[in-house]
Amino acid sequence: MQEINHTLPEGFIIKTTEAAIKAPGRKDLAVIYSTVPATAAGVFTKNVVKAAPVILDMERLKGGSAQVIVINSGNANACTDVEGLNNATEMARIVSEDLHIAEDKCLVASTGVIGVQLPMTRIRPALRDMFSNAKNATLLEAASAIMTTDTFPKAVSKVIDIGKGSATIAAIAKGAGMISPDMATLLCFVLTDLNIDHSALQLAVTEAVDASFNRITVDADMSTNDTVLILANGLLGNDKVVALSQEYHLFKKALQEVLIELAVMCVKDGEGATKFVTIKVVGANKVEDANRLARTVANSLLVKTAIYGGDANWGRIMAAIGYSGVEFNPNIVDVYFDDILVVNNGYSANNDLKAGEIFQKNELTITIDMKAGQDTAKIFTCDLTEDYIKINAHYRS
Amino acid sequence: MQEINHTLPEGFIIKTTEAAIKAPGRKDLAVIYSTVPATAAGVFTKNVVKAAPVILDMERLKGGSAQVIVINSGNANACTDVEGLNNATEMARIVSEDLHIAEDKCLVASTGVIGVQLPMTRIRPALRDMFSNAKNATLLEAASAIMTTDTFPKAVSKVIDIGKGSATIAAIAKGAGMISPDMATLLCFVLTDLNIDHSALQLAVTEAVDASFNRITVDADMSTNDTVLILANGLLGNDKVVALSQEYHLFKKALQEVLIELAVMCVKDGEGATKFVTIKVVGANKVEDANRLARTVANSLLVKTAIYGGDANWGRIMAAIGYSGVEFNPNIVDVYFDDILVVNNGYSANNDLKAGEIFQKNELTITIDMKAGQDTAKIFTCDLTEDYIKINAHYRS
Repeated sequence: MQEINHTLPEGFIIKTTEAAIKAPGRKDLAVIYSTVPATAAGVFTKNVVKAAPVILDMERLKGGSAQVIVINSGNANACTDVEGLNNATEMARIVSEDLHIAEDKCLVASTGVIGVQLPMTRIRPALRDMFSNAKNATLLEAASAIMTTDTFPKAVSKVIDIGKGSATIAAIAKGAGMISPDMATLLCFVLTDLNIDHSALQLAVTEAVDASFNRITVDADMSTNDTVLILANGLLGNDKVVALSQEYHLFKKALQEVLIELAVMCVKDGEGATKFVTIKVVGANKVEDANRLARTVANSLLVKTAIYGGDANWGRIMAAIGYSGVEFNPNIVDVYFDDILVVNNGYSANNDLKAGEIFQKNELTITIDMKAGQDTAKIFTCDLTEDYIKINAHYRS
Repeated sequence: MQEINHTLPEGFIIKTTEAAIKAPGRKDLAVIYSTVPATAAGVFTKNVVKAAPVILDMERLKGGSAQVIVINSGNANACTDVEGLNNATEMARIVSEDLHIAEDKCLVASTGVIGVQLPMTRIRPALRDMFSNAKNATLLEAASAIMTTDTFPKAVSKVIDIGKGSATIAAIAKGAGMISPDMATLLCFVLTDLNIDHSALQLAVTEAVDASFNRITVDADMSTNDTVLILANGLLGNDKVVALSQEYHLFKKALQEVLIELAVMCVKDGEGATKFVTIKVVGANKVEDANRLARTVANSLLVKTAIYGGDANWGRIMAAIGYSGVEFNPNIVDVYFDDILVVNNGYSANNDLKAGEIFQKNELTITIDMKAGQDTAKIFTCDLTEDYIKINAHYRS
């Protein structure tokens, strides 16, 4: 994947640099800049404890446009009081002054350790120097600069025919731990040259996030910093796309594909993960039931460790749906590992040998058929390994 | 602990034997027998998927009395269809015939792997031989016979002065994994010679379970087999204790102490655990909020791995309460590690060094003061280590 040359949409420039926020030797600052003001929308963490940049961006996005996103990795700037908010504001101000754009058109995002103030003495000069010295960065270099425990950079770009032209969607994301359903987004930045109405953009990103990042879970821990930002600078010059038009649906479909690709990358890079697992619930009575069942199974430590161990212990799946809080008749439930029936009407289908083979695979799908209704849900998750423990027992040290 | 000679209440006899349900060489069958009919009460898993013995006991306990409990370890007899229910019934019948007591006075409990039929060809003769051949077992031997991944047997006995006599309460429990709040009981059997009214007994055990086993979590996975059974055979000859009397409160207090001791043992024996942690929430607006906050922190993989690593990363605690679903003002929250203030009004109290020392301890308390109301909650939990993964990745193999 590292070899792909991701196309940037017209009018976007990216810079990256190092301010020793992470361990020295790794880039930890990125600035994404649109040469013209862009329509901007976002989706943020539902965590009650919100990081300073999240609070700042939520306020600034009310204006519906933005031109710059300043991102640092290595420090979440969360639980950092007034000083943290001042620091986030200052990061935006430094770049806005350098680029001569309005301060409130600059957004900020941070990811890393919680509760520690940003090293502003190192960040200030690094940000001031960025546009004078640094050469332009590629999309993949930006994806690298925003990594924390990620093991590979996550970038996707896509060109779609829309109206008479071709719009480009380029996006990066980071995230490997503290990833949970219900706004499991961590950081994701999407850039497009499409000309699109603000409310259409917000609707598209909300729906696309719901179908992508909100469908993944690594460890059920929801971040204080989860942020998806999208900038649409309109340089394609197409007629402005409005909500629910044919072009809107074209764009939303492409955006959703891009975000699903990134979300799947985040799960595959789940801290310590060795396997990628799709949990599908079908035949549920309500969509909420289907989601709850799928998420409970996806977050069960016993299911995740069984997957890791290649032990096709379907009893743990039955136990997990049983305590999900959803009411159902266990005596009609079927469970499949890929296309092998493992549980038949709540009991063993006597296919443990074949089931065991599927649990040896690196990618597999567990399908739970409730046989109670028509509703379905899908969650992407990974296994739980000793390496997750190692990474998280010593993250700050 | 192994050296303690636990007193059995008058009139109770215990037998244990081996039927190769677990790996050969370990006892896996226990029968608890009261020489006279006993008042009986129980508390069972809330899991929708209930094991066969749970279904059988819930039905039989409606009569309010019992005389025998037959227990096997190594196989949960869950998700085993009609055959599983027949096997549970037959286990009770064999013992009832041998002891010449009514079949419906025999209760059954099972623990172990889900979805596999019991090896009845080995269990039948073993049960038939139990009372003719085996010498009586001690309480601790019974606790050993019901172990699965437990690393030590869990037994507690206590003598209380009640009325003119001294009542004995003796109890055993097993449980190290698949332990979750909200009926995290796994298996627990309590025996007493007290003479007590049935409704008083049921009330006492329900309240005591709520204050003990429902306050612990190892891995948030709720078992299909959780069962607490209490037999009170009345051989003390005291005036029958009725609900809410002075004697009732004396008994309930003692019962609660016994169950808390056992619950704490289960957490200390949590699969792979190296540390015992008390999560206290104070100053909450509602008891449900306090419980939810405490449980969310106790179940956070990131908090549990930080505790394991001795990394006093309080940001993960703030993130966990933030996604608990409880509404609160993060800017007034205080967090203490033992008696050290670590978070002051939502931000660092700059005591990270002292906090780090506390996180090196084997037993510690995390107190979260919401400063919003008067309600409190306490949850006992453990850390999450590589050994939990190892144990559960290969449990069935």
